Amino acid sequence: MKELIVATKNQGKVSEFRQMFSKYNISVKSLLDIDRIIDIEETGTTFEANAIIKAEAMVELLGLPVVADDSGLEVDALDGEPGVYSARYAGMEKDDQKNTAKLLRELEGKTDKERTARFVCAVAVARPGVETFVKRGTCEGKIATEPQGTNGFGYDPVFIPRGSTRTLAEHSSDEKNAISHRHHAIEQIEDWLKTLS
Amino acid sequence: MKELIVATKNQGKVSEFRQMFSKYNISVKSLLDIDRIIDIEETGTTFEANAIIKAEAMVELLGLPVVADDSGLEVDALDGEPGVYSARYAGMEKDDQKNTAKLLRELEGKTDKERTARFVCAVAVARPGVETFVKRGTCEGKIATEPQGTNGFGYDPVFIPRGSTRTLAEHSSDEKNAISHRHHAIEQIEDWLKTLS
Repeated sequence: MKELIVATKNQGKVSEFRQMFSKYNISVKSLLDIDRIIDIEETGTTFEANAIIKAEAMVELLGLPVVADDSGLEVDALDGEPGVYSARYAGMEKDDQKNTAKLLRELEGKTDKERTARFVCAVAVARPGVETFVKRGTCEGKIATEPQGTNGFGYDPVFIPRGSTRTLAEHSSDEKNAISHRHHAIEQIEDWLKTLS
Repeated sequence: MKELIVATKNQGKVSEFRQMFSKYNISVKSLLDIDRIIDIEETGTTFEANAIIKAEAMVELLGLPVVADDSGLEVDALDGEPGVYSARYAGMEKDDQKNTAKLLRELEGKTDKERTARFVCAVAVARPGVETFVKRGTCEGKIATEPQGTNGFGYDPVFIPRGSTRTLAEHSSDEKNAISHRHHAIEQIEDWLKTLS
């Protein structure tokens, strides 16, 4: 089946185009599916490489300054996995619950000291005609034995930051934003952010 | 306040960037706001011109074949208004209910014969390196005296197609798709659609 892009975000129009094109065996993508249209392939093997790929692809498309991050979880007992594959650890569909479940299975039977891990975030700043730069922030901690808490996203429910007894998903967003890997990465681009504002 | 684009569609990340950037007085746009980022300005004064503008802008961004439509309602008693301004007839925010309410106010006291109107749809087909073409379809009818029906979108609840006693919003989507302006425009590009599939 051939795919065709319809340049609209109007759900009513998308439905009509979809229905009317189906008899030609043509499926419809719209601006509502923009990430699949733009389809930035994260082919890098490091967080930094992927952040740069995303930021530079968007700058090329938009001609505007772009910040992109790539982030994930490095588990020492798994030789750094899931790493850059964190979002799709359990399969091609991004699924936070399946990912955390798989991680807990992989670590079954591991003692507290064998559960050390860190969240890593690379933040790239790309601008038209100017060299891109990228910075890394981390948040050290360990993997819990079961999910706890409902805040945040990703592996937050199974990650206990060093110095805490609660998972990141049991932290308020203000608490998380004060200690997170993303916070520490953004600190590194603070000078540039200040020149903007 | 300065705007910065964050290249993600992950709502959790968007929230975190938004919170963390706020102290720099920087507001965040993400791929979730893509139409505002790409910001295709429909500066044309005809449906055809606007359909071409949208289709060609998207081809340039994506390098893929794009179909775009521009459509609206021409009311004879209003000298063809709202026309290309149909979506924003009652104000800058697109609001179907306000638009239909304004239209009904403008036509207050008009007899049946004075309420003639047509839906117009221009469909442009744009491809990399090939000349764009654009085709028009119409659907003749009249404006009802009050909104009826819940299907469709836009002015459908106040538009009665010629030969019917119901508004378009009282037609099933199959019924609408057999007689609509968009259907008649797509018929015009059928030969090209068949070459695709």
